[in-house]
Amino acid sequence: MIYFDNSATTKPFQEVIDSFVKVSSEYYANPSSLHGFGGQAEKLLSQARAQAAKLLSVKNSEIIFTSGGTEGNNLAVKGTASFYKNRGNHLITTEIEHPSVREPFKQLENRGFDVTYIPVDANGRVNAGDIERAIRPDTILVSVMHVNNEVGTIQPIKEIGELLQNYPKIIFHVDHVQGMGKVPLPLYQNHIDLCTISAHKIHGLKGMGILYIREGVQLEPILSGGNQEGKLRSGTENVAGAVSMAKALRLITEKMEHKKEHLSNISKTLRNRLKNLDGVVVNTPDQIAAPHILNISIPHMKSEVVVHALEDKDIYVSTTSACSSKQKTVSSTLTAMGVSKEIAGSAIRLSLSYDNTLEEVEKVIAAIAETVAALRKVMK
Amino acid sequence: MIYFDNSATTKPFQEVIDSFVKVSSEYYANPSSLHGFGGQAEKLLSQARAQAAKLLSVKNSEIIFTSGGTEGNNLAVKGTASFYKNRGNHLITTEIEHPSVREPFKQLENRGFDVTYIPVDANGRVNAGDIERAIRPDTILVSVMHVNNEVGTIQPIKEIGELLQNYPKIIFHVDHVQGMGKVPLPLYQNHIDLCTISAHKIHGLKGMGILYIREGVQLEPILSGGNQEGKLRSGTENVAGAVSMAKALRLITEKMEHKKEHLSNISKTLRNRLKNLDGVVVNTPDQIAAPHILNISIPHMKSEVVVHALEDKDIYVSTTSACSSKQKTVSSTLTAMGVSKEIAGSAIRLSLSYDNTLEEVEKVIAAIAETVAALRKVMK
Repeated sequence: MIYFDNSATTKPFQEVIDSFVKVSSEYYANPSSLHGFGGQAEKLLSQARAQAAKLLSVKNSEIIFTSGGTEGNNLAVKGTASFYKNRGNHLITTEIEHPSVREPFKQLENRGFDVTYIPVDANGRVNAGDIERAIRPDTILVSVMHVNNEVGTIQPIKEIGELLQNYPKIIFHVDHVQGMGKVPLPLYQNHIDLCTISAHKIHGLKGMGILYIREGVQLEPILSGGNQEGKLRSGTENVAGAVSMAKALRLITEKMEHKKEHLSNISKTLRNRLKNLDGVVVNTPDQIAAPHILNISIPHMKSEVVVHALEDKDIYVSTTSACSSKQKTVSSTLTAMGVSKEIAGSAIRLSLSYDNTLEEVEKVIAAIAETVAALRKVMK
Repeated sequence: MIYFDNSATTKPFQEVIDSFVKVSSEYYANPSSLHGFGGQAEKLLSQARAQAAKLLSVKNSEIIFTSGGTEGNNLAVKGTASFYKNRGNHLITTEIEHPSVREPFKQLENRGFDVTYIPVDANGRVNAGDIERAIRPDTILVSVMHVNNEVGTIQPIKEIGELLQNYPKIIFHVDHVQGMGKVPLPLYQNHIDLCTISAHKIHGLKGMGILYIREGVQLEPILSGGNQEGKLRSGTENVAGAVSMAKALRLITEKMEHKKEHLSNISKTLRNRLKNLDGVVVNTPDQIAAPHILNISIPHMKSEVVVHALEDKDIYVSTTSACSSKQKTVSSTLTAMGVSKEIAGSAIRLSLSYDNTLEEVEKVIAAIAETVAALRKVMK
């Protein structure tokens, strides 16, 4: 099997699973229990939090464990809007956010908030100046993803973070789900207030995530109850999940250090060879994209047909985002980039991990070439 | 180790962990992915849903997987209030709900909803007539727990469900987190619209739960995004978690069938022997309590002191609920029952599983007797 669908989800690292099993089996107490068995679980949770904080170069108290990227994004967007609603009613985001950011904004619009959706250029990139021009006296939140999940474009987070320094009352949220472990994003240096990470995109387990919440930023919780996680995320802590997520973070950070060149090389090979393949259009921009996502189109061939043709060769890729793939809608990012319906409707996303090999890349290129050739034959 | 803190959390069944590992390792694809590898994951998720539905005697489409009891309760309470707010502004619950129900109601009060909190009697039981008398033309939700988490009192769910049949516009939510697998609760027969279950209270894994949503009942989602789980709970599905939760449900249902007598016997022994122990007050009512929870007080001895004294003998019990134990507040259930501050402040909760033994019960009784005797000595 060649798995090139790593932006949909990744294969958990063995060490991640092992740590989950060890904690679930041996340290299953409720960390909120007063006794020492609960204390052991609490200690493991604290250690996981400290490890994650260290890897992200932030304070322990700034790390909140969540049930995943969707919860992190919902808590960041809705939690900010609800908490700071007396400060203002205006929110800013982009036209290319993941549904777990876009939909919370739609819900907030229904609740009376005013949302500005900033467009992107032909590369799928938002312009920091456009964001600044959209700011009003009543703006309370700017939410921009780091790496776009459909085409891989890196957004100008640093620029946006810097310009927002002039607007200290605006909270800056970054959806870092696709960027984590692939494109570094120093949280303090980029003046980020809230940052969402998901475990299962970095070879962790599904059902776990982290929301970084800068000290001083307040949120209205969306899951209230026993006041766990600094009162911001109630619910019995998934200690095994947290420990395994900290492990995934450590391992992906190591891979990013040691296998960066490798990923960059196989990514470039994939891109350059496909770019030169007759009948293939590359939708991912050249210079400002993450190394692991390549979005291409084979015009006149529907996305699903290509996905299934490659599947017949034991190669697994996506149409657009997994979260949208069954809704049969055309990629919202490609549409926002001004790509034609024809190109958008034939788009497929190849997404790599550090563990993919050059050999796999070669096989995928050959398989796509064959698929295009077969199509040509039919078309004639 | 004698673990009598099963209402805080339970030791996961080995089969639960095994199934989680198998799915996480071999079927890690995103169930929303279009390819067959994603299809395998989706099939496992469907099977888990079907198995859970069968065990609860409801339709597959009525089962929504969540990240746990807190999320289930938040979604049920807030989701109902938000969706039906145009129908009415009044909500009814009790004074003894778990924080994950109570706190959402507090948040809704801040959003302008009017909430009636029904008191309980000296047994910790709500009166169905009191609920009926609280109903107004603008009432949209009644939320009552099945088994109280602090003292074990079983609430008159059947009576409430029946009386609510006369008010077809009121949604009926039951927090079944403590009752599941211990006290049967047929969902259709009790006319329940929404029912919350947590995996880690039935030897499943933390971070998983189920919300039963009766066909026809609508909710405003609190986690929006990729529209998974019938659009009611977005987020990449935790397939391994769902499969392992279905397994936990099956195993606890089997235990309830085959080890009911055993649990009842050890529970009665514990209760009767402690009841007759000089210096011990039993707070759990006699006839209408679940078999696994026994709340006692040793007057003049603070809860924490007893917890730690027993811990020295390798016995693990709780003060009140784990979710509240570190907040050093007196049990809200005991307070609602009209128990004195003195008794409430010295309360401890012993909570059993089907796997606890008579031998363990004997040891715990002896340990409590010793603790009381040691206290006496000091007091003299």
